[in-house]
Amino acid sequence: MRVFAPATASNLGPGFDVLGLALERPGDLVEAEVGDRPGVEIVEVTGAASLTTNPRENVVGIAAAAALERLPGPARGVRLWLHKQMPLGSGLGSSAASSVGGAVAVNALFGGALTSDDLVACALRGEAAASGTAHADNVAPSVLGGIVLIRASDPLDLIRLPVPAALRVVLVHPHAQVLTAAARRLVAEHRFTIGQAVANLGNVAALVVALHRGDLALLGRSIQDALVEPVRAPLVPAFAEVKRAALDAGALGCSISGSGPSVLAFTGSDAGADAVADAMQAAFTAAGLESDRYVGPVNTSGAGEVSGRPSPTDRLRALDRALESNQPTSGTDEVRADIERGRDSG
Amino acid sequence: MRVFAPATASNLGPGFDVLGLALERPGDLVEAEVGDRPGVEIVEVTGAASLTTNPRENVVGIAAAAALERLPGPARGVRLWLHKQMPLGSGLGSSAASSVGGAVAVNALFGGALTSDDLVACALRGEAAASGTAHADNVAPSVLGGIVLIRASDPLDLIRLPVPAALRVVLVHPHAQVLTAAARRLVAEHRFTIGQAVANLGNVAALVVALHRGDLALLGRSIQDALVEPVRAPLVPAFAEVKRAALDAGALGCSISGSGPSVLAFTGSDAGADAVADAMQAAFTAAGLESDRYVGPVNTSGAGEVSGRPSPTDRLRALDRALESNQPTSGTDEVRADIERGRDSG
Repeated sequence: MRVFAPATASNLGPGFDVLGLALERPGDLVEAEVGDRPGVEIVEVTGAASLTTNPRENVVGIAAAAALERLPGPARGVRLWLHKQMPLGSGLGSSAASSVGGAVAVNALFGGALTSDDLVACALRGEAAASGTAHADNVAPSVLGGIVLIRASDPLDLIRLPVPAALRVVLVHPHAQVLTAAARRLVAEHRFTIGQAVANLGNVAALVVALHRGDLALLGRSIQDALVEPVRAPLVPAFAEVKRAALDAGALGCSISGSGPSVLAFTGSDAGADAVADAMQAAFTAAGLESDRYVGPVNTSGAGEVSGRPSPTDRLRALDRALESNQPTSGTDEVRADIERGRDSG
Repeated sequence: MRVFAPATASNLGPGFDVLGLALERPGDLVEAEVGDRPGVEIVEVTGAASLTTNPRENVVGIAAAAALERLPGPARGVRLWLHKQMPLGSGLGSSAASSVGGAVAVNALFGGALTSDDLVACALRGEAAASGTAHADNVAPSVLGGIVLIRASDPLDLIRLPVPAALRVVLVHPHAQVLTAAARRLVAEHRFTIGQAVANLGNVAALVVALHRGDLALLGRSIQDALVEPVRAPLVPAFAEVKRAALDAGALGCSISGSGPSVLAFTGSDAGADAVADAMQAAFTAAGLESDRYVGPVNTSGAGEVSGRPSPTDRLRALDRALESNQPTSGTDEVRADIERGRDSG
C-alpha cells in the first residue's frame, strides 16, 4: 500500500503560521505493510542519505507511531518505506510531508478510522520533532489539500478556503538550505511594532476575501509580508532579485515559501506561471545558484493512497515472496534494473 | 439639507486598525446650507459644550474644507450646524462621525461629485486632527456602511465585507472617557511577539471567512484579540467583568470598541442582544458606572442625507426668513419650545 503526501508552501505572504497550500508535486511516497510485531519499523529510506531509519528519530516513524496509538483496537505493527522526493530544509514542507505520509499510511492500512484532524495531530508530532514547534501550516494542507487556514493551534481549528480555478503556483527551490529551527528562532526572538502587525492583518484578511471572490488582482495586492519576510529575507540568497524578477515577469505576488529558501509566486495562467518560473530561475542563476521549479495548480485532494503500476519496491517484494515459495517468476532482471536506476517517481 | 453620519465600532476583536462596522444609531447630524463667502463657517455646535465652532479646529470643519477643495468648479462656501448625538472619547467613533458628516454634507450640497474613497480621504483629515493619525477604521464604515476591511491605508484600499442577516451588535458605553490619542500612544510604544501577531492573523482571517459563510459560531470564536486588548484593557473600567458578563449571557464574542471605554459584543438574535446588553450594563453598574446601550443590526447604508420632518433648526431658519420677508407665519411658539427642550433626535 502506497501513500503520496504532497509538498506544501506555508505563510503565503501575510499569513505566517496560519496559511498553507498543497502542491501537485513534489511529494513524499510512503509504502506500508502490516508488521509482525507491535510498533513501527522503518525498513528503508530512499532519496535522503542523511535520514535515519530509527523510527523514534525519523518523523515518518514518529507520526506513524502516533497514528497507531490513536487507532482503536489492539496494538498493531507497521513496516514503512519512506521515499523522499523533495529536498530537506527547502521551504517545501519536507518534514511535514514525511510526517503526513506516515500517519496517513498507518490509517489507510488499518481501516481509516482517524479523522483529518486526528491525522493532522499525529503528523504534528513528527513536525514538532523536526522543527521544535508543532505548527500546522504545512501539515494541515498536506493532509487536507487546498489552501488551509489554521485559525488556532490549541485546540486546533482548521478551515479550508476556496481555491480560484485559474490560480497557479510557482515554487522555485535554489540549491541551498535553510534550517527551519534556526529560521524560526530568528522570528521568535524578534519584537514587532503594531504597524507591522496591522499591515499583515489587513493583507491576510484581504487575501481571504480574494479567495472567496476569485479576485486574483486583490490576491496579488495581498501577498505582502511586513512581519517575517524582512527578518528572513537575508537567509534566502538573492531573494530581492528573485522577487523583483517574478513581479516584473507578471507574478500576482511573491514571497518566501515557509522558512525558505524556496520562493513562492502566484499567477493566473499556466503560460504566465512558466514565464514567471523562467524569470525566477534566471535570477537565481545570475546569483550563481542552480534551482528546481514546480509549477501548477493547487493540489486540492491532499495526501492519500495511490494506485497504478506497482512501484519497484512492491514488485521486488512480490518477487522475493515468489522466490521463497519456489513459484515460477519472470521479469526479475527488469525489476532489479529499475531499482538500480533509483526508486520510481510515483 | 441634513446628513446623518453613523457611529462606528472599530477593531472588532482581532482587526486592530483594519476592521470597522457602522451602527444604526447613534450618529451625528450635520445641517448644511450654501454660504455667501468661500470656505467653511460653523454656525453652531449642539450636544457637546467642549467643541469649538472654529472651522479650522473642529473636525467637521476640517473635513468639510477638504471636501470643498476636492470638488470641481469654483470656490464655494458652506455654513454648517453640527449636532453631536454621541459622547466624545467613547469608542463609538465620535470624531469620525462628525468628520464624515462634514464631508458628506458638502458633497451632497454641491452635486455629489465625490466618490466614497474621496469622502473617506476628506474625513480622514478630520480624524487625523482629532487623534494624531489618519486611520480609516471608523471613517470608512461611517461613509460606506456595513463591515469594512481597510486592507491598506496608503494608498487606501477598502473592501466591504458581507454582513450576516442575523448578526446583532451590542455596544455599551460606560460614563467614562478614554483619550484616543493616549490609547493609541500606548499601543504604538508597545512591542509584540510573533505569537501575539499569529493569534490575531488566524482570528482576523477566520472572521472574514465567518462573514462570507454567515457562520456565527466561527465569528464568535474569531472575536479574540491577543495584540491590543491586553494593552488597553486596563484603560477600560471593569472590562474583564463586563466581558465575562457578556459571554456568560450568551454573546458570540466581546471586545473593546475602538480605544474604549465602550465594549462591543455580538449576538445572533434581537432577544439575545437585549439579554447581553442587560448583563453588560449590570456589570458596569456593579462597578459603580452608569452606562448607555445601543443594540441593533449593522447599519448597511452608511452616511447620507436624511429627509422627513424638518428639524427645529430648519424650522427656525424658515421662520426667520418668513419674519424677515413679513410673510404671515404660524407655529413660532411651538418651534421655540422645541429648541429650548434641546435639538431633536433626528
